[in-house]
Amino acid sequence: MAFIKNLLLLSVIIPICLGKKSPNFVLILADDVGYGDFQCYGHATQERGAVDDLAAEGMRFTQWYAPDSLCSPSRAALLTGRYPIRSGIVGPNRVFWQNSRGGLPKSEETLAEALKRYNYTTGIVGKWHLGINEFVANDGNHLPHHHGFDYVGTLLSFSYHFRCDPTKFKAEERTEKCFLNKGSKLVQQPITSEDLTEKILNDSKSFIKLYSKKPFFLYMSMPQAHSALFASKNFRGNSKRGIYGDSINEMSWAIGKLIKLLRELHLDENTLVIFLSDHGPQAELCHHGGSAGPLRGGKASTWDGGLKVPAMAWWPGTIKPGSVYRGVLSSMDIFPTFLNLAGGETVTKLDGTSLTDVLTGTHDDAKDPAKHDVLFHYCSDQIMAVRIGPYKLHYYSQYQRDYEGDLCNNGNPYDDKLLYFNCSLSHYHDPPLIFDINRDPGEQFPLDPSKQQDLVERTASLVQKHRQTIIPVPSQLGSHDSNVQPCCNPPLCACNYQADEDGIELSKDEL
Amino acid sequence: MAFIKNLLLLSVIIPICLGKKSPNFVLILADDVGYGDFQCYGHATQERGAVDDLAAEGMRFTQWYAPDSLCSPSRAALLTGRYPIRSGIVGPNRVFWQNSRGGLPKSEETLAEALKRYNYTTGIVGKWHLGINEFVANDGNHLPHHHGFDYVGTLLSFSYHFRCDPTKFKAEERTEKCFLNKGSKLVQQPITSEDLTEKILNDSKSFIKLYSKKPFFLYMSMPQAHSALFASKNFRGNSKRGIYGDSINEMSWAIGKLIKLLRELHLDENTLVIFLSDHGPQAELCHHGGSAGPLRGGKASTWDGGLKVPAMAWWPGTIKPGSVYRGVLSSMDIFPTFLNLAGGETVTKLDGTSLTDVLTGTHDDAKDPAKHDVLFHYCSDQIMAVRIGPYKLHYYSQYQRDYEGDLCNNGNPYDDKLLYFNCSLSHYHDPPLIFDINRDPGEQFPLDPSKQQDLVERTASLVQKHRQTIIPVPSQLGSHDSNVQPCCNPPLCACNYQADEDGIELSKDEL
Repeated sequence: MAFIKNLLLLSVIIPICLGKKSPNFVLILADDVGYGDFQCYGHATQERGAVDDLAAEGMRFTQWYAPDSLCSPSRAALLTGRYPIRSGIVGPNRVFWQNSRGGLPKSEETLAEALKRYNYTTGIVGKWHLGINEFVANDGNHLPHHHGFDYVGTLLSFSYHFRCDPTKFKAEERTEKCFLNKGSKLVQQPITSEDLTEKILNDSKSFIKLYSKKPFFLYMSMPQAHSALFASKNFRGNSKRGIYGDSINEMSWAIGKLIKLLRELHLDENTLVIFLSDHGPQAELCHHGGSAGPLRGGKASTWDGGLKVPAMAWWPGTIKPGSVYRGVLSSMDIFPTFLNLAGGETVTKLDGTSLTDVLTGTHDDAKDPAKHDVLFHYCSDQIMAVRIGPYKLHYYSQYQRDYEGDLCNNGNPYDDKLLYFNCSLSHYHDPPLIFDINRDPGEQFPLDPSKQQDLVERTASLVQKHRQTIIPVPSQLGSHDSNVQPCCNPPLCACNYQADEDGIELSKDEL
Repeated sequence: MAFIKNLLLLSVIIPICLGKKSPNFVLILADDVGYGDFQCYGHATQERGAVDDLAAEGMRFTQWYAPDSLCSPSRAALLTGRYPIRSGIVGPNRVFWQNSRGGLPKSEETLAEALKRYNYTTGIVGKWHLGINEFVANDGNHLPHHHGFDYVGTLLSFSYHFRCDPTKFKAEERTEKCFLNKGSKLVQQPITSEDLTEKILNDSKSFIKLYSKKPFFLYMSMPQAHSALFASKNFRGNSKRGIYGDSINEMSWAIGKLIKLLRELHLDENTLVIFLSDHGPQAELCHHGGSAGPLRGGKASTWDGGLKVPAMAWWPGTIKPGSVYRGVLSSMDIFPTFLNLAGGETVTKLDGTSLTDVLTGTHDDAKDPAKHDVLFHYCSDQIMAVRIGPYKLHYYSQYQRDYEGDLCNNGNPYDDKLLYFNCSLSHYHDPPLIFDINRDPGEQFPLDPSKQQDLVERTASLVQKHRQTIIPVPSQLGSHDSNVQPCCNPPLCACNYQADEDGIELSKDEL
C-alpha cells in the first residue's frame, strides 16, 4: 500500500517538477456524440479528423461514463464534480427547457470558480444548457458569468435544437427554441448555422490569444452533433457517412484549428486538452443520429450506449501518444483532476477522483485498484443501475425496441423522438439484471442472479450508503414560465445583431 | 481516366523500382474472430496486442468482406480468389465435416500453386478445413500438399472444434472431431491445446528460417478464437475480458513473435503481412463468443456482422503507418494482389481485384472508383444479399433474435449453437430490404424501397448477369462417410506421437 501511495504522490510531483505546476486546460464537450462515432472508436465510414489525432497523439479512454444520459444533468455533474442529484438537476423533464425558471444553483462551486482560486482565467464558448432566466425574460440569472466564467463568448444558452433546422421549420417556428447569445446578450433568433462553428472557434481562439499569459481554463462546448444536424458549405455533402459525418467533420475541423493555435503559441506542452461527449447518441434519429458502436441503447437510457462516451486526453510531453486506458472513469473526474493539476489540491467532497496518475501513465488499468469501485447510474433522482467492478446491475432498465419502420422515413426521422425519456416507463428487475461488462460490453448475456447473491447484497448495501449521502435540495427542472422565454426584441423575437467589438465580453468583476 | 491509369501503373512500378519485385507473403487467418474483437476496432476491454501493432504500423481496413459467413467456403474463396460456388463449396451442411468425402477440387488453382509459378516456396501451418480424406481413412487426398503447399507443418485439417474442450468432453468423446496432423501424418488425437499455438508458431518460424532465400508464401492459419476456446497457462486468466480475451492475446503473442523474426532476419521491408478473420463471430457462445462490434448478426448470417472482418496489412517502408482504408474489399482480393506483386500478373478469371494501389496509398477510398462496385453475399448456393456501392440489398435475411436466457447459463453457452446455419430458414424480402451501409453500418434503418426502384432494378440485373457466369460444378459438401473418419491408430483413434525430426515435412515434389 505504501508503494501505491508513493506512486500516487509521484504522479502529482512529476508534473510539478516538469514545470507544469499550472497547466492550461481546454475542455471540449461534444453534444449527443456516441461511443462509436469516431474512426478511432471503430466507425467504418467516418473520416479521420482532429479528434482521431487527439487519440493518436494522446490517450483514449474506453470506459468513460457520462454522469447522466441527458444534457443538463450530465453537464451539471461535469462542472461540479458531483452527481447531478446533489445540485437538484432532477425532475420529470430531465433537462432544462428554454422557459425553465431553474438553473444550476449558485451555491454550487463550479470548476470555473474553483480554478479562479488558483488564479486561472476562465472562459466558455458554445453550449451551456444549465438554465437561462429566473424571473423575467432576459434576466440571464443562470448564465455562465454567474458561475465563475470570466469570459463568455458565443453562447448556446439552450441548445442547437431539432427545431433549429431550417429545412423542417420556418423562421417563426424556430424562434422559440433557437437563439444565440454573445455573452449575456441575445444576438440571433433564430440561429444561422452556416457560421456557428466558426463563431465558436473564433471566440475560443480569441480567448486563448488574449489570456494565455496567465493559466487559463477554456470550456469549448460544441453544438455537434445534436439535432438539428448542420454542416456549413465547406463540409456539407463531403462525408461518406452523410450529414451526420459532415457534422462530425466540421466539429473536428474546429478542434484541429484550436490545437494548431496551441502549437503556434507554444502552449501545447503546457495545455491539457480533454475531449468527450456529454452522453450517448440519439439513435431514434435514424441516419441523423449517432452510433453507440458495440453498446446497447442510447441517449436517455442507462444502458451503456446512453452513458459510455468517446473521451480522450491530449498533453504532448506528458501523455504517452497512442495510449489506451480501459478502466472505469467518469466525467465527474475532470473537476478533481484539474484542481489537482492546478494546485495540488485533493478535493474530498466530490464524487469524482483525480486522474493525474492515469494521465501520467503511473496508473495501470489492469493491475492497480480501480479509480471507481462503484458508479451510480441515475435517471433523474432514481438509481437505475450500478456499475461495480466489472459488473453492472440494472434495477430498472428502459425498453429495448427495434427502430425499423415506424421511426424512420427512408433513413430520415419523422420527429425528434426519445424513446427512453420517461424514467417511470422502465422495467423493474428483482433480482437485478446483471452483466459482466468486461466480458460483455454490449450487455447481451445476463448472469444468473442466483449465482451472484454476494454481489447483489454488496451492491444493495452500497446503494443504501450512497443514498444516505444525498442531501435533499430543491429540484431545478420542475418550473416553466412563458415569462422567462428568451426573446431578443419583444414581441418579435427575431434578430441578427453584430457581435460586440473585438468579439470579447468579460463579466463585470473582470472589467 | 489516363491519369488514373497512370496511377495504377505507377502503383505496380513503384514497388518494383524499390527492389520489391518479389516480396514475401505472410497471410495470417484468424478463426471466427469478429469485427469488434480488437482494441483497434473499438473493443473496450480487450488488451492491446501485436494485431493492434500491425494496424498502427500498417493499414487497417474498415469494410473488408469475407466471401462467406462460414469457414470452408470462405477459406476456399480466399485460396482461389473466386466465389466458393465456383469450386462447389456449397451444400446444406455449408462446411466440411471431419468425415466428408469432398474437398477443394484439384482442378482449382490455389494461391499457393499460382505463386509457385513465380518461384515461391509455399507453406501452410494451422487450420485447413477444405477436406481431408476422399476414399478411405487417412488417404489425405484433400490435404494441402495436394494444393500447392510445399511445406505442411502442424495442421488442423478440420478445426479446433467445440468438442475439443477437455472441460466439457472426455477424451473418448473428443477423438472424433479433434485431431492434429504434422504434414500428412495424424500425430495427435485428441488435441492437447496447451502447446498448440506454440507448435504453430514454431513451424511458421522454421519455415521462414529455412526458405527465406527464395521468395516465400506462408499461410499461417490460427485456431483462435473458434470454439473450443483455449489459452495456454501463460495467457489463461490474464485478460480483463476472460477466456475469449486470453485466446486473442495468445494468438497476438504468436503473431508478434513472427513479426519479430521477420525483423531479425531483415525481411520486414520485403514481406507483406496480411491479417484477417475468416468471417464473423459466433455470438451464440455468450462470453465465449466474439464481438461483431457495431454490426448486426454474426457467423453464418449474411448480416454484416457475419461478413465484415477485421483486416490489416503490414509492410514497413511501403504501407503508410496508421493508415485506414474505408472502401469495400474482399478476401478474394488477396489472390490477385499477391500475383500482381509477385510477377506483375493481372488475373482476369477471378472475382477478386488487385489491391496493390490500395497498399501503396495511390487509391483514395473517398474519391477513386471503388475496388468493388458489387459483391454478392451467398449462403451456400443462394444469393442472400448484394453490396452495391454504399447500399446493401437483402433478398433473404436470417432471423434476428435476442440471445437472453435460453442460450446462456450465467454467461456460458449450453451448447455449440449456430442460429443462422440453415439458409432455408431465412426471411424472403420482396421488395428487398435495403440499407445505406455508409450511413448505417449497423443495418438498423431500412430505406423505403419505393424510393429506390432504380437501385432495385439495377441490382436485379447484376445478379442475373452474375448468375450466368456460374458454371455448375459438383457440390463438395454433400457426402459423408464413416470410412473416411480420420483415425491415427484404428480402432483406438488415440495417439500423441512426437513430431518428425526438425519439425519439418516437405511434400514429395520438393524432396
